[in-house]
This record gives sequence, structure tokens and C-alpha cells, in this order.
Amino acid sequence: MTSLQLSAKEEMVERFLDAAAQGDLTQVSMLLSHAPSLINQTGYSGWTALMLAARNGHYHVVKALLSDGCDKFSVNSSSQTAFDIAKFWGHRHISDFLGRTDDGCQRVLPGSDLNQCENYFSRETLDRLSEKRTDKVWLEARQSDPDTVYLLFSNLSPMVSSSQEDDNAGAETKLCRFRYEAVKDLLQEPATVLIFLGVEKRNKPSSSSSSSQTEEGVQEPPAWFAIGTDEDAAGLLKRCREKNCSFPKSPNRDLLKFNEEEAGVVAQARSVLAWHSRYSFCPTCGSSTKLEEGGYKRGCLNSDCRSLKGVHNTCYPRVDPVVIMLVIHPDGNQCLLGRKKIFPAGMFSCLAGFVEPGEAIEEAVRREVEEESGVKVGPVQYVSCQPWPMPSNIMIGCLAVAISTDIKVDENEIEEARWFPRQQVIDSLLRRAPPAFTVPPRQTIAHQLIRHWIGMNSNL
Amino acid sequence: MTSLQLSAKEEMVERFLDAAAQGDLTQVSMLLSHAPSLINQTGYSGWTALMLAARNGHYHVVKALLSDGCDKFSVNSSSQTAFDIAKFWGHRHISDFLGRTDDGCQRVLPGSDLNQCENYFSRETLDRLSEKRTDKVWLEARQSDPDTVYLLFSNLSPMVSSSQEDDNAGAETKLCRFRYEAVKDLLQEPATVLIFLGVEKRNKPSSSSSSSQTEEGVQEPPAWFAIGTDEDAAGLLKRCREKNCSFPKSPNRDLLKFNEEEAGVVAQARSVLAWHSRYSFCPTCGSSTKLEEGGYKRGCLNSDCRSLKGVHNTCYPRVDPVVIMLVIHPDGNQCLLGRKKIFPAGMFSCLAGFVEPGEAIEEAVRREVEEESGVKVGPVQYVSCQPWPMPSNIMIGCLAVAISTDIKVDENEIEEARWFPRQQVIDSLLRRAPPAFTVPPRQTIAHQLIRHWIGMNSNL
Ligand SMILES: [Zn+2]
Ligand SMILES: [Zn+2]
Repeated sequence: MTSLQLSAKEEMVERFLDAAAQGDLTQVSMLLSHAPSLINQTGYSGWTALMLAARNGHYHVVKALLSDGCDKFSVNSSSQTAFDIAKFWGHRHISDFLGRTDDGCQRVLPGSDLNQCENYFSRETLDRLSEKRTDKVWLEARQSDPDTVYLLFSNLSPMVSSSQEDDNAGAETKLCRFRYEAVKDLLQEPATVLIFLGVEKRNKPSSSSSSSQTEEGVQEPPAWFAIGTDEDAAGLLKRCREKNCSFPKSPNRDLLKFNEEEAGVVAQARSVLAWHSRYSFCPTCGSSTKLEEGGYKRGCLNSDCRSLKGVHNTCYPRVDPVVIMLVIHPDGNQCLLGRKKIFPAGMFSCLAGFVEPGEAIEEAVRREVEEESGVKVGPVQYVSCQPWPMPSNIMIGCLAVAISTDIKVDENEIEEARWFPRQQVIDSLLRRAPPAFTVPPRQTIAHQLIRHWIGMNSNL
Repeated sequence: MTSLQLSAKEEMVERFLDAAAQGDLTQVSMLLSHAPSLINQTGYSGWTALMLAARNGHYHVVKALLSDGCDKFSVNSSSQTAFDIAKFWGHRHISDFLGRTDDGCQRVLPGSDLNQCENYFSRETLDRLSEKRTDKVWLEARQSDPDTVYLLFSNLSPMVSSSQEDDNAGAETKLCRFRYEAVKDLLQEPATVLIFLGVEKRNKPSSSSSSSQTEEGVQEPPAWFAIGTDEDAAGLLKRCREKNCSFPKSPNRDLLKFNEEEAGVVAQARSVLAWHSRYSFCPTCGSSTKLEEGGYKRGCLNSDCRSLKGVHNTCYPRVDPVVIMLVIHPDGNQCLLGRKKIFPAGMFSCLAGFVEPGEAIEEAVRREVEEESGVKVGPVQYVSCQPWPMPSNIMIGCLAVAISTDIKVDENEIEEARWFPRQQVIDSLLRRAPPAFTVPPRQTIAHQLIRHWIGMNSNL
């Protein structure tokens, strides 16, 4: 390549960047059709055409560049993405457009600058109808209804359908659904735990489209129940005459393979069943308890027990609030990730910990980050949450801004913690070779918090 | 007043409003010095001088009007406050200034439009030092340290100092603090529960300014412990030789009378003690348990128990996540409040309910609002949270936008629910006569959510 050719190419890049900055869509399109490789070229200080168009509020150019496949995650020499730039200069329609993620996240409230994700395990396809839990007649009628759907859990593992493709990584797992006839013997066993999950939401037709008639002739959508048993898997599979079903053994891996709709049902069912498996006795007096209210209460069998007077949490399923946070460096361009010994090689994730009694979410974030990494945190911002049924957590996802940077790891908690530059995080997220580390899988809120930060204003 | 005088006054109002709209600070100040009553006068469509200055971005006029005592909460005929108007027209410095509340709330993250409140029960004055909970030698040394502070609880009521002024409504209650010498007999009693609360934060000097020397000669800040006992109050008071102390009887009222710093300590201590009082037995096998780890664990005494293998939540204090939400009408100008039978006459508050297993915070908000009031909710936005030690909740405060408006109350849950117009809420909050209803006390997150909405963009 001669110096003349180089200069001609430079001139072309210059014209292209200038057209983007001016909002000259015709010129931008014309140049791109001649030389598609222009699209991610950078000029002064690493600015791309997308950044220049975003800077000056040229929405149509931004749209055209994106639809032509430009890299919206590239950063200039100040580590700003086009999104950051649009945000900083107040071009809200452009930052909204650039901030839109590809996984169905939507804006919460106008007035909020945050996109809210629907995380894995979060989708509710059933209406829980909690007022029906005390209606024994109604519950019994639904149990024997031929449209009712039963899910089967053995030692907290759901029975899932297995097919040839299941050996492939990424194959989707499906819940086995049973009708009353198939499970009615099992329901008679004394060790069987039966949980009423809810009825299918009317406005969201599910795969079970059938519905039954009530006495008044109004169509009632199908009810769902979960059956929990400690009976061994082999016996259960035989009993249900199911050849292509199995009970996966690793909750942390296998429970992440459902589609979004089934994942939500699994989260609900497994959390409640896990509570029954650990809370058979009254913690107030030590007596046995019995399942009540469709599986959402365990009443003490000792009639003198204090737990029978007034309302106490001992009788109700436990949900443990956990904070999980992405800590941002004070410079706005690095984030703090840590790894536990049990993580797969190379994986780093967000720090996390249980909320303690008498502690606000924001204080729990500050305490946990300082305990685990030695880093002090100032502002904390809620982003989204995720039910995590191992056994029954609600993961409260936050962004947190560090006010100190020295790392001193608590080795009982984590093996290593490190500041990762924004560009390394983007490369790891997009799996651009060679990634500096492995991000947690997309089904985890940790992954979603990292994505959220990348799509976020860097003026933190 | 003759028609001529009226017209002269009208003309003056017109000149005043016009000066504010133009940003003519000299004219605004001059007119106000002549006629201070101009300040809250309204022109076309109920617009005040403040609204006009906010509309056109005149920061100095806005500041001058506020310092002269104008009413920043008045609304125009579209129910917009000056804050709403500044927000809508993008004058961020003005909306920030107007949105600043008077109770010390601060901005979380730049990029967030929300002010974050520090709610009552939320302040942490102690560093919990959770890593010391397993260090028996350290804990025992701190127990007998002469600088260590002990708080005393009888049946979950903290011992507080009472003085003559305590009969006045609004008098502040103070925790009684004891030294080791005063409580060392009590610590020997088998029924005594001892909780390590933490040490005073180094950067926040507290009223106990003394500190002790460690072996290395480094100053260690005083440690705090809570003592729980079921011994009756009279006996305890005699034992401690305290004449001016008492144990308040009504947690929901008396625990709201501390200053912010003591309230945080009470929240922590009472939540953990409440757990011990209800969880003496292992829920997995029904055996007795013993207190471990400075009061943050109860280990099963049955060596065969499943709870001794792996990590399970049965051994750790329980924290119950609760959603509490202010539901906004789709028109943005009304909010939904409900009342329970047990509320004081005339009081209405936010709806609330427990987060269920496998449920996201946002879904819990939608389910609870629909169950209690029949109103359907769309977008949900986290605002702030509050630990609530009756017995151990974390109240997760949200704004929620209704997508339906018909109210159908679940009478098991609440007595009445109603849409209240913004102006009625402002009047009730400011106790402008006659208020349409009573707002909950300022120590509750319900109160803070209502305040938050009033200072918020009405373009919801
Ligand atoms: Zn009992
Ligand atoms: Zn046990």
C-alpha cells in the first residue's frame, strides 16, 4: 500500500465520519455501499461514525449504522460507548434506542433511566390464587379435575423429558406434565407433599389450552400442582410408566435449561418443596407439623404451642433475601468481579451475600463488598431481582459505586477479586477472542447486571 | 374593593408573573418587596411565578422565590408542581433543586432520577464485624471489656430511659446502656441470649467515645452486645438498680421514638432476638438447638441431623422480604391507599404483603395489589427499603403504575381502599386543614413513599 493509497483511504474515512457527524444519511449510505468496511473505522480519539451521529443527535444515521451491523459496544479513548455519548448530550431518543438490549428488556417507568430485565426464574405464567389456598372444597375439586396439570419432584429434582438432542449442550429441558389419573395413587402416599401452584393466567394462553367448566358454567383455566416425594427416581419412573423422562441431578446446572415460562414454575415449586423438606418440625416447640393451605403453611400439632396464637413467620415458607452487586470503579470504567473456588475455571462473577436482620439492602451491599473484597462502596442502585430456588432466595441485583479501590480478599469467601476494564468485560460478554475471563451464564442475574452496566451511562 | 383597585392588583400579579417567566430577578424581587402576598398568586391555568420560572429555566428566580417562602407543592390546573414542569422541560438543575427534600435525602447515582431516603431503622452506626462471630476468644475478651456497651431486652422490649418529659408526645426515647459489671450476673443465667451487635464505626464518633487497647496497642472501638431475657421487667429493673428506666409495651408505637442512630441498633438487636425466641428447636429434626457464632446461628444438638451437613438456611436468622407499594393512577394524579381495621381512625397507607417463594419483587407487587384491591399494576419501580423489626422484615418500597382503576377490596386484608387526588395527599402530608385522611407516621416507609411521589414527575 503506497502512501497515496493510504491517504485516499484516510480521506474516505474522514468523509464518512464527517457525513455521520453532519447527519447526512445519503452520503453515509452511499459511502457504505462502496466500502462496507468503513462502518467501524475510527477517527480522532477513537470516535466511530456511530458515536459522532449519537453526539449530534442524528437518529436516522444511528439507526442506519446499526442496521448495517456496526459495533455499538466499541468505546472511544475516553471509554465511552455511543450510548454513553448520546446520554451525556441529552439525546434521549438515541440513548433509549442504543440502550435497548436484545433480550426483551423494557423500560420501567418513564422517569427511570434504567431498563428492567425479566430475569430467568422470574416469569409468572400462573395466577397463584392465594385466596383459594384455604378453600379445601375448591382445592379437592381441582385435584381430581381431568385438566389439572401435575409436576413431579423427587428429592427436589423435577421430572423432565429427555430426548436424543438432550445430549447436546444448550438443548432445552421440558417438564413432564401429568394428569390426575397418572398420579392419584402417589397422592395417597403419606410422604407425598402436594403444593397448589395456581391456575393458568387467562390472558396468557399456555400450552395447556383446555379448561374446565365451573358449576356456574364459567370456564376455569387449568390448575397446576407440584408433587414432592422422597421416593427414589427409578421407582417413580416405573410407577409413571414414563420411558423418556429423568430426574436431573445438578440443580445449579440442570435447572437453568428450561424455557422462561417453565423456569418460573420450577422456581415456585422447588422453593416451596425445599421448605417442606427442611421444616417438618415446629421451630418454636419441636413438635411435628402438618401441611396446610395448599402447601403454604405448616401448622404445629401441639395444641399448646405459642405458634398457634397470633400470626408468626414460623408457619410460613421462608424466602431469603440476598444482595448481588456489580461494583463500579470510581473512574466508571472498571468493575469488580470475584471468583469462588467452586466456580468453573476462568469464571468471575458479581459479589453477593445474605441480607441480615435489621439491615437495609443498600447497607447489606456495602457490608458484603467490604467483607469480601475490602473495597468500600458509596451509592447503591437497585436494578432488578431474580428468584433463585436453591433453596429459596430472592436475589436483589444492584449496581454499586466504589469509593476505594484497594482489594483485600476474604479467603474464606472468595479466591480472587479483580478490577476488570470495561473493554475486557465487553469482549468477554461478546466472547471476542481472547476473553480475559468467563462471564456467568445468561440465566444468572450476575450476567444481566454486567450487561446492564455495559449498556449504561459511564458518567457514574 | 372597587373594580379599579381589583384591576390594579390584577395588573400587578400579571407583571410579577411575567417577570418570573422572563427571568427578570430584579423586577421579581422589587415587586415582592412591595407586595409579599404576590408570591403564591396564580395566573392563567393556575400557574404560579415558581412554575413559570421553572418552565423557562430561570434558576435564580426559582431560588429567590423558594427562599422567600413560596409554596413549592402547589399545583396548576393540570395537577403539575413546579418540579414536574422543570422535569418535563428538561431543566435538570431546577428539578434537582426543587426535588430536594428537607429530610436529608440524597441522590443515589447520577443517572438515576430518584432521591434515596434513609428510612427509620436503616442507619448503621455499628460495624457488624461478622468475621469475629466465630472468634470465641475475641468475643469473650470484648464481653468483659469495661468499654463494651450492653443493651437489655425483656420479652423483645428494649430497656429505655424515662424522664419527666417522656409524657409529652414526641419525646425521644433513649436506650439504657450498661457496662459489663452491671450485667455480668445476668450473663450467667441459662435463659439469657447474648447477641454480638458489632463495634462502633471508626469514622463516625458515637456518644461512647472511649475505646480500648488491643494487645498490639491499636485502639479498638467499643463493642456492643444485646442481652435478651424472658425475666420479668420488674425483676430486671431491680437487678440493674435503674430507677428511671422502663420497658415499653407497644412495639409498633414505642419503637418509633428513638433517634435515627439508636433505631438502627434496635432494629438489628430486636430482629435477631425475635428469631431466637421463636426458633429454639431444629425445624429439620425437632431437637433442641444451641446459640452459636455470636448469636447469628443456632446449631442442632442432634449429631445425626441433616442440618449439620452442608449449609442450610435452617441454622441462620430469618429475614422476611415484604413489598410495600404506592400505586399511582394511570392519570398520574391520584394514588391508591388502603386502610386496615386496626389502623387509627382516618389513617390510610400503602398496600403491602410478603414476597412468596419463587416470586420476583415486581411480581409480588402486582399480585398483592390485585389481591387486596382488585387493581392491576404494570410498571414497578424500587424506591428505597426499610428494616422493620416486628419481628424481622425487610420492607421493599416501590412505586407502581396502575393499568386498571376499579377497586374491589379483599375484606380479609383491608377495610377500604380509595384513589386520593395528588392535592389531597399534599394537604394531608402538610396537615393543611382539613386533611382528607391521616398519613402514616414519618418513621414508616409508607410515609416516605408518599413524600417521594409528591416530589416526583407527574408524567408517570
Ligand atoms: Zn409448636
Ligand atoms: Zn436437627
